[in-house]
Amino acid sequence: MHMRFTHVDHIGIAVENLEEGIATYTLLFGCGPSRRVTVISEQVEVAFFNVGPTRIELLAATDSTSPVAKFCAKRGPGIHHIAFAVPDLATAVSALKADGMTPTTDGVRYGAGRHKIAFLHPKQTGGVLIELVEK
Amino acid sequence: MHMRFTHVDHIGIAVENLEEGIATYTLLFGCGPSRRVTVISEQVEVAFFNVGPTRIELLAATDSTSPVAKFCAKRGPGIHHIAFAVPDLATAVSALKADGMTPTTDGVRYGAGRHKIAFLHPKQTGGVLIELVEK
Repeated sequence: MHMRFTHVDHIGIAVENLEEGIATYTLLFGCGPSRRVTVISEQVEVAFFNVGPTRIELLAATDSTSPVAKFCAKRGPGIHHIAFAVPDLATAVSALKADGMTPTTDGVRYGAGRHKIAFLHPKQTGGVLIELVEK
Repeated sequence: MHMRFTHVDHIGIAVENLEEGIATYTLLFGCGPSRRVTVISEQVEVAFFNVGPTRIELLAATDSTSPVAKFCAKRGPGIHHIAFAVPDLATAVSALKADGMTPTTDGVRYGAGRHKIAFLHPKQTGGVLIELVEK
């Protein structure tokens, strides 16, 4: 058996205010974000910082009904999810199902990147929302 | 200005039971951990999975007074911290201080790796415990 995932594609961090989050993480990283995007379907604004092959994605809700707004209301701002890169999403999903894991596969594609994605609910992973991204 | 960090060195995930955590993440990753270690000073047992240049570290408390036990009691199991790799810790700490961030620099070295580390408290980073590791 070998590791299914090639690398950590991104880590999503929920922030209450995107401008304040960008200011904080610009101090931390010593540089500003590489890109900003609004994902209307997820009611979220995102700022991306590149750290090697991994992006840190700051996520700010654009509406109080956004999943990110609900996360912040329940747990406070902080790490929201981890995304692992897979060479082929369908293969990874089949293999996970064969091993008894049940990824969501509703065919949603995320944001500007238009990558194929699936999620594993925190109930399956000891409290961690995990995303798989075909890269 | 350029990104201070070369990559995400590891992501620490607090689990309530290390054997159960290893079983779950072995299903997720399709392979078992590369290494296990007990860090007596932190009252924690750790299992490591390699995902590209990043390790996923499952952390289980060995004592109810462990920081990881307190984290689980307060927030439930889940993502505990993110560690970024820096070429030189002293340089990174000086640069962060010049920018108004205040890393801890108590000279603690972590676990079996004996790497130089520092931490940024979640109050400074919007709710995320961040570790810097000299690599």
